[in-house]
Amino acid sequence: MSGIVGKKKGGPLFTMATRTPLADVNRYKVPLTIFLLIYMDLLNCQQYTIPFKSPSDCRDEEFFDISSLSCVTCGPNQRRSTAGLSCICKTGYQTLSSDKASIACQQCPADRPAVTKDGFGCIRCPSSVNDTGKCQCPPGNVLVERDVNGNLLDVARCEMCNENSPGLSVPNISGDRYSSERQFGLRRTGFLFNCVCVSATVYKQLVWLQVFSNLTACQALGNMCVMNMHSFSGVSTDACGLFNTIFRSRAALSSTQDISYWRANLPWLYYGDQPGLASRVLQSNPVPISFSFRGRNKNTDIKLLAAVYNIGGEFLRWEKVGGDNLQLCPETTSKQAAAFNFGTAYQESVKLLGSHPEPLFYDVFMDLGGGENRKLLPLPTLVYNQQYNGQFINQGEISILSMKNWYLSRRMFVVDTLSGREKSISSLPKVIRVASSVKIRFRLVPRTQEGQVYPPLMTVTYRDVAITDINTQTVSVSWRTRYEMDQNEAHIKTDVSSPGPLICVCSQTALGVMGGVALLYSLLKTVSWKRRIASPLIDLETMLKFLLFYAGDLANVFFAVTVGTGLYWLIFYKAQQFVSVLLPLPAQEEQFVTYVACAFALKAIQFLHKLILQVSVDVFFIDWERPRSKTSRTVQAAGELKRDPSPVSIWRTYFVANEWNELQTIRKISPTFQTMAVLFFLEVLGFSNLALRDPMADLQRSPDAYTPSYSLILRYGLAAALWLGIGLLQGIFFTVFYEHFVEDKIRQFVDLCSISNESLCGQRGLLPNTQIQTFQVSLNDRLRLHYDRIREQIGRRNGPSRLIDASSAKQFEQRARGYQTMNHFLGSIIDHAHHEMDYIVKDKLMFERVIGMEFLEPSEKSIFYNDEAHSFSDVLFYGNEATLLIFDTLFFCVVDLGSQSFVLAAVLTCVQQMIFRLIRNALGRKNLVSKTLVDERFLI
Amino acid sequence: MSGIVGKKKGGPLFTMATRTPLADVNRYKVPLTIFLLIYMDLLNCQQYTIPFKSPSDCRDEEFFDISSLSCVTCGPNQRRSTAGLSCICKTGYQTLSSDKASIACQQCPADRPAVTKDGFGCIRCPSSVNDTGKCQCPPGNVLVERDVNGNLLDVARCEMCNENSPGLSVPNISGDRYSSERQFGLRRTGFLFNCVCVSATVYKQLVWLQVFSNLTACQALGNMCVMNMHSFSGVSTDACGLFNTIFRSRAALSSTQDISYWRANLPWLYYGDQPGLASRVLQSNPVPISFSFRGRNKNTDIKLLAAVYNIGGEFLRWEKVGGDNLQLCPETTSKQAAAFNFGTAYQESVKLLGSHPEPLFYDVFMDLGGGENRKLLPLPTLVYNQQYNGQFINQGEISILSMKNWYLSRRMFVVDTLSGREKSISSLPKVIRVASSVKIRFRLVPRTQEGQVYPPLMTVTYRDVAITDINTQTVSVSWRTRYEMDQNEAHIKTDVSSPGPLICVCSQTALGVMGGVALLYSLLKTVSWKRRIASPLIDLETMLKFLLFYAGDLANVFFAVTVGTGLYWLIFYKAQQFVSVLLPLPAQEEQFVTYVACAFALKAIQFLHKLILQVSVDVFFIDWERPRSKTSRTVQAAGELKRDPSPVSIWRTYFVANEWNELQTIRKISPTFQTMAVLFFLEVLGFSNLALRDPMADLQRSPDAYTPSYSLILRYGLAAALWLGIGLLQGIFFTVFYEHFVEDKIRQFVDLCSISNESLCGQRGLLPNTQIQTFQVSLNDRLRLHYDRIREQIGRRNGPSRLIDASSAKQFEQRARGYQTMNHFLGSIIDHAHHEMDYIVKDKLMFERVIGMEFLEPSEKSIFYNDEAHSFSDVLFYGNEATLLIFDTLFFCVVDLGSQSFVLAAVLTCVQQMIFRLIRNALGRKNLVSKTLVDERFLI
Repeated sequence: MSGIVGKKKGGPLFTMATRTPLADVNRYKVPLTIFLLIYMDLLNCQQYTIPFKSPSDCRDEEFFDISSLSCVTCGPNQRRSTAGLSCICKTGYQTLSSDKASIACQQCPADRPAVTKDGFGCIRCPSSVNDTGKCQCPPGNVLVERDVNGNLLDVARCEMCNENSPGLSVPNISGDRYSSERQFGLRRTGFLFNCVCVSATVYKQLVWLQVFSNLTACQALGNMCVMNMHSFSGVSTDACGLFNTIFRSRAALSSTQDISYWRANLPWLYYGDQPGLASRVLQSNPVPISFSFRGRNKNTDIKLLAAVYNIGGEFLRWEKVGGDNLQLCPETTSKQAAAFNFGTAYQESVKLLGSHPEPLFYDVFMDLGGGENRKLLPLPTLVYNQQYNGQFINQGEISILSMKNWYLSRRMFVVDTLSGREKSISSLPKVIRVASSVKIRFRLVPRTQEGQVYPPLMTVTYRDVAITDINTQTVSVSWRTRYEMDQNEAHIKTDVSSPGPLICVCSQTALGVMGGVALLYSLLKTVSWKRRIASPLIDLETMLKFLLFYAGDLANVFFAVTVGTGLYWLIFYKAQQFVSVLLPLPAQEEQFVTYVACAFALKAIQFLHKLILQVSVDVFFIDWERPRSKTSRTVQAAGELKRDPSPVSIWRTYFVANEWNELQTIRKISPTFQTMAVLFFLEVLGFSNLALRDPMADLQRSPDAYTPSYSLILRYGLAAALWLGIGLLQGIFFTVFYEHFVEDKIRQFVDLCSISNESLCGQRGLLPNTQIQTFQVSLNDRLRLHYDRIREQIGRRNGPSRLIDASSAKQFEQRARGYQTMNHFLGSIIDHAHHEMDYIVKDKLMFERVIGMEFLEPSEKSIFYNDEAHSFSDVLFYGNEATLLIFDTLFFCVVDLGSQSFVLAAVLTCVQQMIFRLIRNALGRKNLVSKTLVDERFLI
Repeated sequence: MSGIVGKKKGGPLFTMATRTPLADVNRYKVPLTIFLLIYMDLLNCQQYTIPFKSPSDCRDEEFFDISSLSCVTCGPNQRRSTAGLSCICKTGYQTLSSDKASIACQQCPADRPAVTKDGFGCIRCPSSVNDTGKCQCPPGNVLVERDVNGNLLDVARCEMCNENSPGLSVPNISGDRYSSERQFGLRRTGFLFNCVCVSATVYKQLVWLQVFSNLTACQALGNMCVMNMHSFSGVSTDACGLFNTIFRSRAALSSTQDISYWRANLPWLYYGDQPGLASRVLQSNPVPISFSFRGRNKNTDIKLLAAVYNIGGEFLRWEKVGGDNLQLCPETTSKQAAAFNFGTAYQESVKLLGSHPEPLFYDVFMDLGGGENRKLLPLPTLVYNQQYNGQFINQGEISILSMKNWYLSRRMFVVDTLSGREKSISSLPKVIRVASSVKIRFRLVPRTQEGQVYPPLMTVTYRDVAITDINTQTVSVSWRTRYEMDQNEAHIKTDVSSPGPLICVCSQTALGVMGGVALLYSLLKTVSWKRRIASPLIDLETMLKFLLFYAGDLANVFFAVTVGTGLYWLIFYKAQQFVSVLLPLPAQEEQFVTYVACAFALKAIQFLHKLILQVSVDVFFIDWERPRSKTSRTVQAAGELKRDPSPVSIWRTYFVANEWNELQTIRKISPTFQTMAVLFFLEVLGFSNLALRDPMADLQRSPDAYTPSYSLILRYGLAAALWLGIGLLQGIFFTVFYEHFVEDKIRQFVDLCSISNESLCGQRGLLPNTQIQTFQVSLNDRLRLHYDRIREQIGRRNGPSRLIDASSAKQFEQRARGYQTMNHFLGSIIDHAHHEMDYIVKDKLMFERVIGMEFLEPSEKSIFYNDEAHSFSDVLFYGNEATLLIFDTLFFCVVDLGSQSFVLAAVLTCVQQMIFRLIRNALGRKNLVSKTLVDERFLI
């Protein structure tokens, strides 16, 4: 790095005006930022940008140097040619030397003021001289400057055409400069070929090239090296070796465009071979433009320009990359254009092998804009197949480590159908070489808020395809644009102004902190549970219980972190104006998917735990109405049992038990509506398009537009947010509106339980003048012991009878008797009949409610805590809506992450809900039958 | 037609072997078929097919005549040129005449045996003669045949090149045949232009053309006419007028390829102008190849070939249509190829205006194959913009009527950037003409079982685009392939072997017949209803009732017909081997959609009718247990009411009423699972791909493949079939498995009703020794009258009290008293307590069950019909599953037809089910409260 800092200044300055920080919290960071800016300016000196010039930009006395892509002044007495790519002598000047690198011009003598047609001689004209200083003949006449032997005449002649003869066959010995090439016995195209195939002739060309230093020939040699995929070794004399020899021999000459790897008259093929150069080139200096997704300064266009050369080394034109030059896949224009829309992860891949005539060579630049002083940034290219001494040096993972060994280069081709021809140039190629994969990788500058990127890297992979049938054969090629940011920057501290790389640290920190809190909370729950079962020992069961609690809490932590992360990406990526974050690459999403999987697995454990608790809970319905004979104005139901006469109707208990059974799987929200609503948003309204890997936030896409792949993180964030959001809305609707104005199943059940008391006592409550009729009961040991003993007796009485398959009537009777015993016992407790098992009614303390643990031990008396919140619904689905909702959300998301299909996820979620509802209902009913001693036939 | 039959024979014969009739039922139709085959053979003579020849197919002594696209023998002493498009003199023969249509050759004299380079003279050589009979000079020498004035030398000279001079400037007066054109003062390209723009010069060319009859020039003139969109008038002398003048002047000459509209040396631009010619050309003779979607003879490739000419009239090559010649849209190869896959409704449309250099002209043929004797069928083209005397003659609907007036033509172009240039050929065009729409329409031969089509018609619409910025401007172009068959063939009788056009007749017949049956059935239902309400009058209510019944039955008819039609298309179109049916066009689907809409509307009426009936049905729960004090081994519940002491517990009634309330919206199948399963099949398994307009039956499509549009009929058939199928499976599962082995809500309810009787009487039934406890009751007048009177009294008692908002306790008491009154009355009826209102129990006759009407009038005694089928469920959702399923199906399909989104349809179906369930529950509960006199709070 030290060799780069402090060279030459003059890079573009960043104005503070364009900086729009995301939040105003970084007041104290301005000095650092300014320092960074200055530092970046210093670095910018080294950035390889060149001014954009095209042949038409050059002045009259300049020609366009196809090697340096700049305008170069012609020699004395010269002006540029019509094409603008070389210099010619001015009017009235004859050309003296004919080597192509430079010409010399001399004024014609006064007695022979005109220049011959070929420009090499001076002559006297028979009549007038035209604008270009050459002799002019009248129409129908032919200018004759030489005799039949080719010797120059002193005075040119104008001769009439012979109209009578249908054709004249005066031979035309092509009198141009190709004759000088003939001395080497090579014709232009043939020369290229011999060069690639026959390295024996290379030395001859070396001599020739060094003598004439032909601009075009240098380019042609460069192209040969490119066709050889930039590969060379230190010893052999192949095209690239030859190129490097010449390159080194030019070390003394000044470099072109201030870029040391670009020597005069040579194409720029290689960056240097200093260790670590690649990472310096790729990661030192940001590109001096900023990308912005929306707003006034919206800029998502990646403008790439390419200088196009043909195989002969001739500069053809500047071309905008896109359309049909580098992208081989025949997609629609609008889709191809998506490749150059910043932030859109573009990928196209198709099999084809059309007819590609001559190979073309591209020097790719990024257009930095700038109006008059348009600047270009050369794109470093990584040729995957490049070899050095037979070793593939550019292969392996793209990481900071391997980057050190890369050899960056310049110039690429797309299809080479030429070098695979055998013997003759007109034969069909045996093998063609195709750029089968072109990747452009953008890397966001860390901590940027202005959408700055490092110079993009172009990675080209060539492939040789053996030709069997050129018309029908296909080859798959791909073109990809990828956007990266450092997700794991190690040196990030607490800089909140850089939201990008923070998220990972953030989410890991959150995971740690919240995991700790969850641990404490689970411990608390375990302690509370231990107190409630009045067990002081820490045994295996305690450990298991703790782990189960911890699983649930940890699942919530994982869920919160993953949803937070997903939402973060969704919001920050899709809503950012200046580009400051880029999506993690698919490979980087793996960790995230692991988190989600963890959350789901833990949540599933919690869910199953709750399910098992619910289907094994102790339930008993006490009909504690005393057999009064007091008058009442209304119905007084009284049951009668033969041997144990009880005046209370058993039907009432049946009714209540039946209703309780129906309540088991009632949920606070409608799961079907939930699924359908989520599906509606995702698939019908098109919210799923938000999860595409591009910065657009449009819900509806044109079918013609390019569709990038989906980001798993965005899909998860979107689906989870929608599911939770709709669930929350449903919860609010049902809690605030539906249960108040339409029906509330839980309250209806409580009402039902109290209806029979109607008018018997003034109020519903246990205590005088209270309405509260639901309680949490903290039993003391004696009461519990008594209860268990009765249960045991009933169980013993029922058990054997079931085994020997007694008649149902017998069973029914026993069951009823058991019920009566228990009912009598519990009813008497409530009526304060047993002094040793008495109870008191009290409110819970606020703190007790919050931490979910009671402070008082029910040692002497049992404690009835008033419970207006109907916390008995905790043993139903109804009271565990949060757990169920999160479980459903995770189930939906996990299926979707696996299948990338929201519809399948919705279908499976519905099926899962159905199955668990069935299980819960069946097991819950069975539990109810065994615990409440109500006959199964009444639970329908 | 008569002018066509019996011309020349020789069309391809159809072998009976390839005929695979769909069924073996048409034994007696063989003679007719054979007759048809013969008849078709006669017609085939007239079919314009030409053998395929390319320049390389011609023998040495033949040249390829670019006008007739055939090989023509050269004159004496001639052989074909290298390109094969003209004849040249054999070696040693000099060319005498130089007009281009024909040349004459003469042997060179012995003293001058060699031919000059230009072929027009004979000369003596200085040394050897080469293979082509021309003089040869040693390397480095130049052959000189003429002096400087262009006069032929007697003996040719070989001259050494002057190596010292860098270039020789001996002038080359282009000694080729263009000089003869110079006499008209026109250069080649200039000539074309002047021609189009300056019609004053046309006459001159006419003369010239008629004299020289240049093959290329004729093509060029034709191209000019094509660029003018084939438009001409009878009087003016524009390009097309000129062409027609020449065409008529050639009437005496023989026509080319036996096609009377194709004259020698002229391109074929027009079909004749006889009235009705278009329909004869398009609908007389099938193309002699057959298309087959699958199987051994699979053939779905539409092979189109085009002879390509440039603007100058030169024949360039034969080209396969597809890829990038006629299709302007830059789609992927695999997608473009779909345009030539028979049966795939292809449509592409895109905006573009690339750089199109020279316009090319295409004569499009259909390749009929045939190996050695490959045949081509010229595609008739309809130029939409063609004018005749300023009238657009080819516009208007494509129907048999307008077809009579069409002028068919040949040859088309895609983009013409040439004729819009002003002044100079190098200027940019002001306007370009684009073939903005190309349609290829295939028409299936009626009654075909071999996949035969008529000659496809190509319709081209040109559009002029004014150029403002040629680089960025776009224009939308479209390319469509359409497949039709006569859906309304009038002369179809009962030919079951031709399923194609039958379906429409079939469905209309079915609609008629089944509509009639439905009418009778509805009448029957109305009569039955009238008998049951014991009303003999035909009043407005009767009419309304009849209409409501009829709506339901008619809905079923419409539904059956539409589903049948949809399934028919789905199965026959997707499964056919030889192409015998093609999908109706989108416009033709309208009628079908109307049918579906009718079915839905009628079904909705039926559904609402049933809903209203259900929420207003009379329900009363009789607890007819007598207050016995007999001993029983088990629970005996007894209630007690203060002023009207009844020993039966009211809780039992509450329980039953509550259960009944919950049964109201129970369905036989699970609607959520139904929706999800359908969605799963359609969207996850990809069944929706079956509804695409192509013959493929693949569920999964490659994302690269072309996706045609959807057929509404196929979507409907698919969705309805899936919905019904899954519904049926669910029904079977629930009926056969679930209700037997898990739970059957209806039977549970019946059991519940009988549990209280348990052990009180030996069996469940009313009669001794019977188990049947459910009955349909036909009340006699007296009983009904009594019942109504009691209801009225209760209503009067309850009504006012509700109005003055009495205390709930008062209400509750009144309600209970009303209940007791009614219960007592009905219980006593069942106990045969009232002799004047007695009843008998009997079975229904089988016929009574079938037609749903009772024969006996309950005049003396009421009749209790045993009803094991639990027909009381008819007043619940449960008993009307068929109606609900069909309603849901139609709802789903109608939403889908409107939105083309299965997901939206599923969402809305779910929401609709929820809403109706809510309504049914709320209203049903209200009805239950008012009819059974059970307090609302117990119905939860």
